[in-house]
Amino acid sequence: MRDVVVLGAGMTRFGKHPDKTLKDLGRAACWEAIKDAGVSPKDIQYGFVANAIGGVTTGQTMVIGEVVLREVGIVGIPIINVENACCSGASAILEAYYAIQADRCDIAIVCGVEKCFMNDTLKTTAAVAGAGDVELELANGVNFPAHWGLRTVRRMAQVGTSLETLAKVAVKNLKNGVYNPNAQFQKAVTLEEVLNSPMIAYPMTNYSCSSMSDGAAALVICAKDKAANYTNKFITICGFGISTGTYDPRRDITFNQLTQRCGKMLYEKTGIGPEDLDFAEVHDCFTIAEFMRVEALGFYEYGGYDRAIESGECEIGGKRPINPSGGLLAKGHPIGATGVAQVCELVWQLRGVCGQRQVEGARVGLSHSSGGGIAGDGAVAVASILKREY
Amino acid sequence: MRDVVVLGAGMTRFGKHPDKTLKDLGRAACWEAIKDAGVSPKDIQYGFVANAIGGVTTGQTMVIGEVVLREVGIVGIPIINVENACCSGASAILEAYYAIQADRCDIAIVCGVEKCFMNDTLKTTAAVAGAGDVELELANGVNFPAHWGLRTVRRMAQVGTSLETLAKVAVKNLKNGVYNPNAQFQKAVTLEEVLNSPMIAYPMTNYSCSSMSDGAAALVICAKDKAANYTNKFITICGFGISTGTYDPRRDITFNQLTQRCGKMLYEKTGIGPEDLDFAEVHDCFTIAEFMRVEALGFYEYGGYDRAIESGECEIGGKRPINPSGGLLAKGHPIGATGVAQVCELVWQLRGVCGQRQVEGARVGLSHSSGGGIAGDGAVAVASILKREY
Repeated sequence: MRDVVVLGAGMTRFGKHPDKTLKDLGRAACWEAIKDAGVSPKDIQYGFVANAIGGVTTGQTMVIGEVVLREVGIVGIPIINVENACCSGASAILEAYYAIQADRCDIAIVCGVEKCFMNDTLKTTAAVAGAGDVELELANGVNFPAHWGLRTVRRMAQVGTSLETLAKVAVKNLKNGVYNPNAQFQKAVTLEEVLNSPMIAYPMTNYSCSSMSDGAAALVICAKDKAANYTNKFITICGFGISTGTYDPRRDITFNQLTQRCGKMLYEKTGIGPEDLDFAEVHDCFTIAEFMRVEALGFYEYGGYDRAIESGECEIGGKRPINPSGGLLAKGHPIGATGVAQVCELVWQLRGVCGQRQVEGARVGLSHSSGGGIAGDGAVAVASILKREY
Repeated sequence: MRDVVVLGAGMTRFGKHPDKTLKDLGRAACWEAIKDAGVSPKDIQYGFVANAIGGVTTGQTMVIGEVVLREVGIVGIPIINVENACCSGASAILEAYYAIQADRCDIAIVCGVEKCFMNDTLKTTAAVAGAGDVELELANGVNFPAHWGLRTVRRMAQVGTSLETLAKVAVKNLKNGVYNPNAQFQKAVTLEEVLNSPMIAYPMTNYSCSSMSDGAAALVICAKDKAANYTNKFITICGFGISTGTYDPRRDITFNQLTQRCGKMLYEKTGIGPEDLDFAEVHDCFTIAEFMRVEALGFYEYGGYDRAIESGECEIGGKRPINPSGGLLAKGHPIGATGVAQVCELVWQLRGVCGQRQVEGARVGLSHSSGGGIAGDGAVAVASILKREY
């Protein structure tokens, strides 16, 4: 099997783009990744494109990859459109990675793109709810904020996590976002501001929830044995983990078994463990989610993230920063684009070009997405590890 | 790279299923494929699930694979949801094939499932239009019947194809459908009935257009080196072709360049050519489409299908039957399921279990899907060849 490296990364700023279509957003991200890679659109042999709610929000569905990639002159090649809730982007990278590894092509482009309803939060919320089981969950009022609110309350009772510790994750991530020009929110908030922002689903306040956003991100990836034509500074994709939910109603909802399985596969495939990581981008759709994911990924024992957050060791400059990009809480969460943007951040951190949010000396990073409902533990989780080889 | 074989195939009858959900349909097809394969759900290591318009028609999107496969007890494994317009199902099989070939897993399940709006043709038509470029095509009124109507008129002018020859494809396919218990339409029609049925988009009448349907189809596929545990009667997937449209406004719209590129890749990958095929399932979404596809696949020279249809050589019992299942015209067209159902038909024909629609001595068959608009030539085409090895 061939090794796979990243040649180029690009993304739009995430946020409200009422003046831009799916095509506009996808075009901008793809073109930036192509320029960054130093390839020509005609060098690209395969496309994998992720989108989650475009069919509902724009009517454009089924062929978003063909429609978007044509905008940068990529036509007539195999294109696969991938969906997997909040892991749509990560799943598209996974498929592209395996396509190169298995010699289906040498160079592939991955794009994640998303467009919400303009100025209609209720309709967007309904669209996003399609990532749950619409019969089991949505019909019972268990949308995503409600779901995570329930899990938060249970953790507070079981582990003793305080509202203040929870809020400090939002403070940390929004502070990191100040230094990320692609983040939707580039303004730091105080602990009090997080705690006193409007209640969304108890005990999660507005700043404790990621925002539904518009945006796109793209990567150009390449077989390592062909990459010397373009660069000798290799950022290598070491491998992936992927798993789906088990729908076990008796499980402990304060621990993310799904992400644990995903992480186990990732560490087995790559031979790299949590102790080797310099930083991680972890799916912080809600503050509580960051706690559960870093513990399930084995960064900390169960319940151990409370102490880590209080110690500051997960901030930029700390022992192992979590979400130096600002995470979903600062960047915003355009569903199909999120997983691709996380890997873009890994690439930029590993290249050392992140300015004031740079994790000094970063050589190995992990990206984790998880999404969908399906009675609690999430529908799917995908994670990858990238490393700098120069 | 490992060889890949089909262990099991299953499908629901296609048609109107107002009493059944996406889960119901998917469950039925998956369970039939699992039973046919002789595997246990827990033997299945990877899932690839195709759906095209479920997000719009049911609100269930992004995680349809997770939701459907859980219904047959498949949980906690990697699942990828794939979309590619009318090639969604075929694209899912392609991804599963490569996943096994590249040693990502030994046994995978593929499911294609679709659910239209109940009793609301207009809304379903709008959902299906999402497979075109909604800005370029849908906004200009060029939905799929209109698109294929324009191409038909041009072919009639350029090649001299008559309305009667066009209609004979519907007569042939609906006749085949009589012997297919899974077909939506199991009633033969006369040439006059086709010509005199209600006009949909000139010159295509009702019987010249496939029907939007509900339904599901599934396959269990396996690495050949592991298949001996289950069977010694191997139906092998020889390989795939895939391509996307080029959006060349100057091209000849009476010839399907997209399918030609797809076929070229297929023949190169498999080392099998059109002359080796005993039969084919070809994407006859409209009568005209069957003409263009068989010519683009190299079964006939440009314009040559007129004579073939008149000669009867493509009927069951003829030299090389086209669409012995009844094709989309008889079976119906539940978008995400169609490509999987075509390969189910290949499996059953190669096993020799098709009763009165059996192609005698069938050893090698081709399946072809194409879908999506994007200014004319289609967004995507996927084709595969399967052969019997016993």
